[in-house]
Amino acid sequence: MESILLYDTTLRDGTQGENINFSAHEKIKIAECLDDLGIHYIEGGWPGSNPRDMQFFDLSKNIKLKNARLTAFGSTRKPGVDPGDDFNVKALLESKAPAVTIVGKSWDLHVEQVMNNTLEENLAMIRDTVEFLKHNGLEVLYYAEHFFDGYRENRDYALQTLTAAVDGGADFIVLCDTNGGTLPFELESMIGDARETLHGKDGIPTKEKPIKIGIHTHNDCGLAVANSITAVKAGAVMVQGTINGYGERCGNADLTSIIPILHTKMKYPCISSQNLTKLKKVSRFVSETANLVPRNDRPFVGKSAFAHKGGLHVNAIMKVPRAYEHMNPEDIGNNRRVLVSDLSGKSNVEYKAKELGVELGENGLDSRKIVSEIKRMEQEGFQFDVADGSLKILLEKFTQQFSPLFELESFRVSIEKNKDQPCSSQATIKISVDNREEITAAEGYGPVSALDNALRKALGKFFPDLDTMRLVDFKVRVIDGREGTAAKVRVLIDSRDQDNLWSTIGVSEDIIEASWQALNGLFARSLRYAQNFILGISTICLR
Amino acid sequence: MESILLYDTTLRDGTQGENINFSAHEKIKIAECLDDLGIHYIEGGWPGSNPRDMQFFDLSKNIKLKNARLTAFGSTRKPGVDPGDDFNVKALLESKAPAVTIVGKSWDLHVEQVMNNTLEENLAMIRDTVEFLKHNGLEVLYYAEHFFDGYRENRDYALQTLTAAVDGGADFIVLCDTNGGTLPFELESMIGDARETLHGKDGIPTKEKPIKIGIHTHNDCGLAVANSITAVKAGAVMVQGTINGYGERCGNADLTSIIPILHTKMKYPCISSQNLTKLKKVSRFVSETANLVPRNDRPFVGKSAFAHKGGLHVNAIMKVPRAYEHMNPEDIGNNRRVLVSDLSGKSNVEYKAKELGVELGENGLDSRKIVSEIKRMEQEGFQFDVADGSLKILLEKFTQQFSPLFELESFRVSIEKNKDQPCSSQATIKISVDNREEITAAEGYGPVSALDNALRKALGKFFPDLDTMRLVDFKVRVIDGREGTAAKVRVLIDSRDQDNLWSTIGVSEDIIEASWQALNGLFARSLRYAQNFILGISTICLR
Repeated sequence: MESILLYDTTLRDGTQGENINFSAHEKIKIAECLDDLGIHYIEGGWPGSNPRDMQFFDLSKNIKLKNARLTAFGSTRKPGVDPGDDFNVKALLESKAPAVTIVGKSWDLHVEQVMNNTLEENLAMIRDTVEFLKHNGLEVLYYAEHFFDGYRENRDYALQTLTAAVDGGADFIVLCDTNGGTLPFELESMIGDARETLHGKDGIPTKEKPIKIGIHTHNDCGLAVANSITAVKAGAVMVQGTINGYGERCGNADLTSIIPILHTKMKYPCISSQNLTKLKKVSRFVSETANLVPRNDRPFVGKSAFAHKGGLHVNAIMKVPRAYEHMNPEDIGNNRRVLVSDLSGKSNVEYKAKELGVELGENGLDSRKIVSEIKRMEQEGFQFDVADGSLKILLEKFTQQFSPLFELESFRVSIEKNKDQPCSSQATIKISVDNREEITAAEGYGPVSALDNALRKALGKFFPDLDTMRLVDFKVRVIDGREGTAAKVRVLIDSRDQDNLWSTIGVSEDIIEASWQALNGLFARSLRYAQNFILGISTICLR
Repeated sequence: MESILLYDTTLRDGTQGENINFSAHEKIKIAECLDDLGIHYIEGGWPGSNPRDMQFFDLSKNIKLKNARLTAFGSTRKPGVDPGDDFNVKALLESKAPAVTIVGKSWDLHVEQVMNNTLEENLAMIRDTVEFLKHNGLEVLYYAEHFFDGYRENRDYALQTLTAAVDGGADFIVLCDTNGGTLPFELESMIGDARETLHGKDGIPTKEKPIKIGIHTHNDCGLAVANSITAVKAGAVMVQGTINGYGERCGNADLTSIIPILHTKMKYPCISSQNLTKLKKVSRFVSETANLVPRNDRPFVGKSAFAHKGGLHVNAIMKVPRAYEHMNPEDIGNNRRVLVSDLSGKSNVEYKAKELGVELGENGLDSRKIVSEIKRMEQEGFQFDVADGSLKILLEKFTQQFSPLFELESFRVSIEKNKDQPCSSQATIKISVDNREEITAAEGYGPVSALDNALRKALGKFFPDLDTMRLVDFKVRVIDGREGTAAKVRVLIDSRDQDNLWSTIGVSEDIIEASWQALNGLFARSLRYAQNFILGISTICLR
């Protein structure tokens, strides 16, 4: 079976997405990470379009990639200009990338109505630019923008643009569904036709050197992954996409889905099984660098991708995991998760207790009581499937294994604002540890910050080595209580150390009370998690 | 071309998703909304599994659906039990739903290894249960769980389970890719085989009454939409899915993608063009009810689905929209967005000013200054594309058309907590209106509530007829400032009267300061919006 080449464009097309920006240094880090994953081509940017991308290529001269070739993106020469005199084409040479991807127009609508160009000159632009870059010793990929839209409206012209690139000596022809509107059935037959044209008796390609076809799709119909794998079945040997499917509008084809499908389901050689286990980490690294919350429901790599909530499902996977898992989560570096909620039963609680290291009573009494308590509290607005930390405390309380680190005696927070001056906040707090009391006060950037500072100061007396941890997220939601009762606020706090993510939850009609519950959950649990909150809350959140 | 029936399971399978919970009343509202969209079957829940779903069916007796049939979900009878004596089957009858969907096992692995049942008894369970429900006058859909997995491992048995349901008199056979691991190519041929079996010479179905096939897919490979439309091409006449693709793990097939593909791209009759324009609203209504942030990049209905960032793209769509749009966004109730940038900012601001009824200076000076102020503030963490209310104030301030209703002199809030007692909050506030001052104090369920009560009391002196309005949402987000500066909190307040949604935003290192900015935006705007906040904040939010 032919190997499939993976071409990543996170660094160029990915940054067209709303909210996505990378510095040149961040791009370098991502390129190294993609190389380590085993990606074959990494498109670094469009050197002719902005200084940051040029800086990226400058920086790239100092790094060594193990597997990947770096590619630079650019467009065909301008009408009537010699490729050697074209600013954009020259920038490609200056980038020193060993491979270049040249975008040209395959849709007559763009040539005539957007660019006010002639169809003939457009063909010459494609041919000349490819030829010029080949003469300069580069590997050249021709990127047929809007190929499928163009084919639909003027088949012959769309195919002529491909032939022009072949005439220029292109190594790859990349067929693009730029607007993302093509269905797999259509795409398959159009690729078939393109292959026939390129490999036909009049085309230049010979059996010894067939033109290689690539596919580049967008997700406007939710079909980018399906279109990519359909193209591979139809003969494409290169798939272009981005990590997490980041990209303009609805995004590009998501390599984090395509790679495991090609590798595990379709059995095409593309990356090694060992590299496949890095997939989730790569996905997270890119979302963290982009500063975007990772989608829980992302296929293969999302936090919920192998999460089980229904009681019957949990019961089944405890016997046979593949009963409700289409593949082994560890193969892609992900893991199975069992959620506890009012939809769940005894099996879920017992599974979680084991995972969280809490001993339950032998006869199942504990787990039955816990299920009913969870159901009652979820009716109140708690949601334990998102707060393992609070669930662990609940399990420990039920089984008399819980001992809090400290007791709150009282706190008081005051906030003042005068005219246009910023708010100022002060807190006093009194706590006790093993019956020894401590009272202290602190200021803060806001009420929770002041409270946090005061608590840290008070706890510091008993636990002097509080160190720095990271708070990941702080979410406040208004929730509906049961009918007839008042509405409530739910506060969810996520914190993290190097290895673990830890979430606690608080529900109250009062946001400070709800925050206190979630915070108290962290403290109660262990000093380690307490630190997360203490530092996290003051550096990242609710100042 | 045959009509395709749309079957929504947001209320049952959708709630299996992490973070998704609906009350029975919310379910009723969603059912009415789906009916209005033109969905043909609405699965309300599993009456035998939990009291909330039973309550839903009780409540449903008081509503009238225009188009849709309500269906209840349940499993086949237990082994060795008569259907009439089975608790779960009886609950289906009690639900009074006119149609029922019966899940049975099509994968021998589940029958033998999970349920410890015999293959023969499983077939009898399917046949008997369907037959019993048909005898009770119901429309019966047989839901062949894990059909594709079962087919892959034991084709003959998987097909026998379908035949058992047909023998029992099922109206529909719904083929399920329960684990979401099937590729479109495989699925297509398996459906072909199933149809041949069911319609073959030995099967009961005749030409006059062919068995109708439905498809139910999950998105574990990012292929649920592709699999659904492939099944339709292969002869399925019913598509099951959920709004926004909500569901367990990576979700179910997303009806908000499938509907426009079937309607607009494949031209199957399914819903009217007029109803199609409601699609985005329905998507938003469900995400709001689920209290989940809508995905911007969701195909068709997402906020970014028709957003253009790149300068070249904006230039092109201004000439020919379809140059970078695969369909007309208005057809699904969505709209084109041009993101603020150096290229597009001026025309964008002028467009918004017109929309919000603010006069700008003739010579374009105002709009240029406003663009640069917006860019500066967005760098700080503001986001005006989500807060038209604040944008309007900004535009008015820039053009000297802004006059605030009142001035804040000062406020002070204090919060106290003792041991396990709930928090208590008090606020004092001093404001002035036309140079007349007022100072007062109030208690509240939390600091913002106390502040709100005090402010309401003070304003009441000048504006005695404050009345009741609704606050829709209050969101707190942690945002990252520029590199090297401290992180901030963004507070977004949505309020609504009968006709308008009004959003204001505040950004600060201090949550109370950020809330005050957003709140002040409401007050500053008009008394009408001030009321929203006053009542809203105290009844719904941050108590």
